[in-house]
Amino acid sequence: MSKIKSWVVPEAGAAFELQELDAGPLGSDEVEVKVEYCGICHSDLSVKDNDWGNSQYPAVLGHEVIGRVVAVGDHAKGLKVGQRVGVGWTADSCMHCSECLSGHHQFCGESKATILGHRGGFAETVRSHWAWAIPLPENLEASTAGPLLCGGITVFQPFLAYNIKSTAHVGVVGIGGLGHMAVKFAEAWGCEVTAFTSSPSKTEEAKRLGADRVVSSKDSDAIAEMAGTLDLLITTVNVPLDWPALINTLKPKGRMHVVGAVLEPIPVAAFQLIAHQREISGSPTGSPTDIAKMLEFAARHDIQPQTEDFPMSKINEAFEHLEAGKARYRIVLEADF
Amino acid sequence: MSKIKSWVVPEAGAAFELQELDAGPLGSDEVEVKVEYCGICHSDLSVKDNDWGNSQYPAVLGHEVIGRVVAVGDHAKGLKVGQRVGVGWTADSCMHCSECLSGHHQFCGESKATILGHRGGFAETVRSHWAWAIPLPENLEASTAGPLLCGGITVFQPFLAYNIKSTAHVGVVGIGGLGHMAVKFAEAWGCEVTAFTSSPSKTEEAKRLGADRVVSSKDSDAIAEMAGTLDLLITTVNVPLDWPALINTLKPKGRMHVVGAVLEPIPVAAFQLIAHQREISGSPTGSPTDIAKMLEFAARHDIQPQTEDFPMSKINEAFEHLEAGKARYRIVLEADF
Repeated sequence: MSKIKSWVVPEAGAAFELQELDAGPLGSDEVEVKVEYCGICHSDLSVKDNDWGNSQYPAVLGHEVIGRVVAVGDHAKGLKVGQRVGVGWTADSCMHCSECLSGHHQFCGESKATILGHRGGFAETVRSHWAWAIPLPENLEASTAGPLLCGGITVFQPFLAYNIKSTAHVGVVGIGGLGHMAVKFAEAWGCEVTAFTSSPSKTEEAKRLGADRVVSSKDSDAIAEMAGTLDLLITTVNVPLDWPALINTLKPKGRMHVVGAVLEPIPVAAFQLIAHQREISGSPTGSPTDIAKMLEFAARHDIQPQTEDFPMSKINEAFEHLEAGKARYRIVLEADF
Repeated sequence: MSKIKSWVVPEAGAAFELQELDAGPLGSDEVEVKVEYCGICHSDLSVKDNDWGNSQYPAVLGHEVIGRVVAVGDHAKGLKVGQRVGVGWTADSCMHCSECLSGHHQFCGESKATILGHRGGFAETVRSHWAWAIPLPENLEASTAGPLLCGGITVFQPFLAYNIKSTAHVGVVGIGGLGHMAVKFAEAWGCEVTAFTSSPSKTEEAKRLGADRVVSSKDSDAIAEMAGTLDLLITTVNVPLDWPALINTLKPKGRMHVVGAVLEPIPVAAFQLIAHQREISGSPTGSPTDIAKMLEFAARHDIQPQTEDFPMSKINEAFEHLEAGKARYRIVLEADF
């Protein structure tokens, strides 16, 4: 395949246009994946609109890809044509720096994001370094798995990285694209789960997802009642919150883990940390082995993102749906070239 | 001893006055310690002046006590009369809550600070729960050991709590009462040590204390050159700093640990955490066993706080010296009743 049908954003904020792009030769460490499904992540919208100032146009977005390997570079390892894989936020890493050699490839200084200076998954095919095309477990439902590759690993990562115990009391702030998966993972991990949401209408849904308790994220008094009760609080929203009250929900040695890309700095009072040895952290996605573990866990516990499905040819409608805040909770595009 | 000669602060901000206070009966779980030495911590000054709003007057301050047990309550365990001990920030804890039973007595909700609603060590004797009178290693120099009981454990705690490896690159911000001990501990722990100080005059001294490198904490460009190099950064100062630059000195998975009680909130950009899985934390002192481990480590590595010595009868002069910012680096009062 030398010409790849691709949904292209020609410039910041513009609509997607179907174009045929020249793919060039496949790199020796690359694999080419025929896209079956590709989720839409909020960061696709951020890159589409150049919210972070580092977009490169023309851009092919999409980094929650499910598909089958159709070509394998000369030096690509561990994958064969026909195999079903997922490709997420990262498409490449150097494989020889200290982070890569330590198994923390997501922190490689030379890593390449799938949608920044690289063509993503809203296309007939997508390419990635072999290490970043993660084999999909046989028993994982392919049509809904895409969002696990970015949103899923983002909220799963703290459980792995910080050795969260099943006895932990876990809070999740924001029941949306990320948060609904966080609740499912926390429940399957064996934890006691509190959901914080600004939408009263999501209360029953949050319980159905696995929450033991739902608290209004706009009600500082209700948050205050949770003081000193949580071991881990995962915040998935990108708007400012009552941070002092939320930090105060943590037990001694508790952790607030930020995965929502809120732009306004979080004001952290030293005393709130010092008095109770609390921690505040954040993380991006995960390493190839982290993603593989997450997929195996999701398959074993039948954790599926809750998705709305559009054919990829309706990509502009799908983004309008996302921008309107209407997605419940994650949109997946099915390739229909 | 029913009347205890004590240096008393009668009201917020007042000078110390020598008074004889009625001690009352010794509690069954308490021990009474005849004070030999007592360090002055910056928090003694904060409580003297009611900076935190929770002081109780008349106040007997002093919580870096070295002395010998002179009386043992009926149910006190593990200590005998004549034994040399240290008493630090905490004088009591309930011993039966989840934190106490887990060995994290410093987070006991019923714990009592030695100088808040309890009489501290600027006196002939001080009392504490037996668990909080920590036996002193024989080979630890008693005349300088006092500051280890609060300042020392405060900066030692992150090494224990977070399993810091000897291969770690550690930064210490502020070369003062806390920071100079942090540099000594980090060096003895086997780490590579960078000292950040606002005083160019302290450069050689910081190196003598064990720093491999000294960087100006006022020079944002110099801090920027340290980007991505530190595993652990301990901040000991209580004034606002160039927080974004300091957080940026952390490697992926690096930690900024706050022990300086800065009152202005620290503005934390979510992206700085998320992109590199960084952590920001804080801690108070430590548990009884943490303190015992710290004292054993200090004795084995001959880590002594650098002290200036005053007789306790010159307590008001000593506090003026501290308030003037002249202490190099920690003041110890020798009891002279």
